Amino acid sequence: MESNSEPIALPDDVRAVNVGLAAFGEAVRAQGAEAVDVEWSIPAGGDRELVDALGRLYGPRSAPIDQANEEVLRRIDESAPLLVGVGAAADDVPEMGERTILHPGPPLPWEELCDPLRRSVHAAVIAEGWAETPQEAGKLVASGEVELDAANHHDTVLPMATTLGPSARVLLVESPQGDRRAFAPINQGPGDQQWLGVDRPEAVERLVFLRDVAGPVLDAAIRAGDPLDVFSIAAQALQMGDDAHMRSQAATNLTIRFLLPRLLRLEEPGAAEVGTFLSQNHLFFLTMGMAAAKATMLWAGEVEGSSVVTGMARNGTTFGVRLPGVDEWFTAPAPPVEDALFHGDYGPEDAAPDIGDSAILELVGLGGAAAAASPAVAAFVGGTMADAVAATEEIARISLGKSSRFKLPYLGFRGSPLGVDVRRVVELEITPSINTGILHASEGTGQIGAGVAHAPVECFRRALLALDAASA
Amino acid sequence: MESNSEPIALPDDVRAVNVGLAAFGEAVRAQGAEAVDVEWSIPAGGDRELVDALGRLYGPRSAPIDQANEEVLRRIDESAPLLVGVGAAADDVPEMGERTILHPGPPLPWEELCDPLRRSVHAAVIAEGWAETPQEAGKLVASGEVELDAANHHDTVLPMATTLGPSARVLLVESPQGDRRAFAPINQGPGDQQWLGVDRPEAVERLVFLRDVAGPVLDAAIRAGDPLDVFSIAAQALQMGDDAHMRSQAATNLTIRFLLPRLLRLEEPGAAEVGTFLSQNHLFFLTMGMAAAKATMLWAGEVEGSSVVTGMARNGTTFGVRLPGVDEWFTAPAPPVEDALFHGDYGPEDAAPDIGDSAILELVGLGGAAAAASPAVAAFVGGTMADAVAATEEIARISLGKSSRFKLPYLGFRGSPLGVDVRRVVELEITPSINTGILHASEGTGQIGAGVAHAPVECFRRALLALDAASA
Repeated sequence: MESNSEPIALPDDVRAVNVGLAAFGEAVRAQGAEAVDVEWSIPAGGDRELVDALGRLYGPRSAPIDQANEEVLRRIDESAPLLVGVGAAADDVPEMGERTILHPGPPLPWEELCDPLRRSVHAAVIAEGWAETPQEAGKLVASGEVELDAANHHDTVLPMATTLGPSARVLLVESPQGDRRAFAPINQGPGDQQWLGVDRPEAVERLVFLRDVAGPVLDAAIRAGDPLDVFSIAAQALQMGDDAHMRSQAATNLTIRFLLPRLLRLEEPGAAEVGTFLSQNHLFFLTMGMAAAKATMLWAGEVEGSSVVTGMARNGTTFGVRLPGVDEWFTAPAPPVEDALFHGDYGPEDAAPDIGDSAILELVGLGGAAAAASPAVAAFVGGTMADAVAATEEIARISLGKSSRFKLPYLGFRGSPLGVDVRRVVELEITPSINTGILHASEGTGQIGAGVAHAPVECFRRALLALDAASA
Repeated sequence: MESNSEPIALPDDVRAVNVGLAAFGEAVRAQGAEAVDVEWSIPAGGDRELVDALGRLYGPRSAPIDQANEEVLRRIDESAPLLVGVGAAADDVPEMGERTILHPGPPLPWEELCDPLRRSVHAAVIAEGWAETPQEAGKLVASGEVELDAANHHDTVLPMATTLGPSARVLLVESPQGDRRAFAPINQGPGDQQWLGVDRPEAVERLVFLRDVAGPVLDAAIRAGDPLDVFSIAAQALQMGDDAHMRSQAATNLTIRFLLPRLLRLEEPGAAEVGTFLSQNHLFFLTMGMAAAKATMLWAGEVEGSSVVTGMARNGTTFGVRLPGVDEWFTAPAPPVEDALFHGDYGPEDAAPDIGDSAILELVGLGGAAAAASPAVAAFVGGTMADAVAATEEIARISLGKSSRFKLPYLGFRGSPLGVDVRRVVELEITPSINTGILHASEGTGQIGAGVAHAPVECFRRALLALDAASA
């Protein structure tokens, strides 16, 4: 403008770019002019401390972080873990105590365990032969004679409310690229099982069956041929309607097909019984995928100074997030499971909070990150494939990379998002959504539904501030 | 208009609806006015005889046809065939001659068989023990000492270039709704096999294995529990990336999962070998689906006076179409397979024409009709899911109904099209596209690619004229 004193010449034709609140754009359009809305909101909800930290971590301190992130992404994308066998936790899980029960999520004392997790501990203690009833088992743990520890501290991941004693059999999964080994239990299958918070005799029987029959048979079958490339199976399953977390049926069926000739050649007496178990367990692959994700994150987690999240786990009381090279858990109260479909007459008032270590799948490009691959998952996130695609796109907004292996047919075979950046999570206040089951909060009736849990942003804020402090 | 003598008042504003040639609409738009194009072309390519027949069959004669079609559609949609066992063709296939070899497609004399089909007959004759070399086998059939007949005339369907002698084992599939039984061979698997036009010793060995080992083992496994609901498996497989024709891997894996505990409990000595065979045969379900489609069409085909196509089959020389209640085949020369992906250096000049009875799958809502379900099929029909959706939509334009069982996730879980109406095919000159493999035309090297065959419209024109004559 040449002079302030002249009247302003208003243009005949207004075309607006509206940044932020949509209402302003609507007002322009209401007057017959064009307006393009740019989605924008105040970073980190306008929290001064977080905005300052973001300024540093995106700005002057970003170079080493970006470099570390690149290496973390490379490891997550290139790790190709192998299922090499099944062993006893006492023999294979590092530093497994003789009187220890491992539980999912961040460490937690007995007093703070939610009901389904307590029941799970009961069943594990009875299966170990340390007690005969749930009441006895509970007293034993409360007395301190049995120690509780976070499975993640032993390179082990546990789905839902699973807990694990030293005699339990675990899948042995190795990442040859990172020379790391991780562990997960044999999936117990659907129904009245310990991992779903049931401590009745049938749940204990299943634990004993897995230890005494399924473990040895599966170990022999797996070792009878080449080890199984877990993420190759997951990649195929994504072309077959799995997200490999909430639904892992295609991956399970592929696994069964690989093992079929080996099972038929075994001399083990329990092979037929294990066949029935596998045939009725469409969730079998779940823990294979989890152990592979954990082996991957153990390798990626060796990198220091990265802002990429390498751990997400819940114990039903707290939700914890981990960063590479950092021992600390960044925690917040466990969230409810939302967008839920409940069995029968159950409803949100019956539901325990989000629980289990399976959220690690969301960090390697599976689960919620691969929702767009799964028509079955679509039913849980809104009912249409467009809703499933939206769930994937949301995780993509907070992720730094794309999988070169996990392809999404509905998105033109684009790689699923991986490498959740704690900076983006805090800036955009979008957290990873996790496709998961829902347990009964108090009655030990097992799974009562399934839905989507949204990781609490508070964990990521704490992680961001710790990263900021460490990089100072 | 009140008077012809007054000058015509031209409107200031022209908005055109343009029917037919797009160029006229473009001309209107070039002058700055709006034009909506309506896709329209002359019915039946303007052929006077066909247009007249269509006029009658859509017009005065339509009522009984529409009524018959409704019943045919109901039967196609409601039939739920069961795999009940495996038997010898000599025992189970109706009117199977002692010295007969069944072949796919319409009946054809030896002299007119294409090279892959001749080779297949060689292998079948050697497996029966009637000759020792392909040369001997060829002479025997040419001499008339071995009879050839169309498998469809014996309620049997054969994929690709399969041929079948009396000792061969066949899947026994029953439609309880229609009380009809149909038959198909055990799928031979990928590689150098007879069904892909190979007559070398390894192909004969596979036929002997299927007869002597796999047949009895599978029969025992299937009978050891409930029969398998074939279309229920197909319906699940459509949610898992199969079209259940070109790709049937998910359906095969589901079948394996169902049979696993039964196989592990068998006393049969060959069970382990059959396990290896199943584990390496991702195409196993194909013939289960075909037999189920045939059992369905045998029931639907009992209705008289319908314009819904109940048979489509090719012998590599001719392509044949069938209508309910009519014995006649309406034939035309077999088309080439287009939109093809070839293995290695092979190309269209090496390709035999379209062959096999599997096109019956396209008529029950599977295969091309379900292309939109399959990311793997998308690769063959253009590369993107949009191309696969377009293939399904094209069949929908010539189909009268939608499956209430086969749902397409990419199309909002809409049912796949079924009930191809010969009137619509002739009117629109759109024929069903068939997802299929490609065999070598002369060298007996087996499968050299895969692609899409378009049924020749000539078959449908003949069928339409016959329906017109019969309804006079």
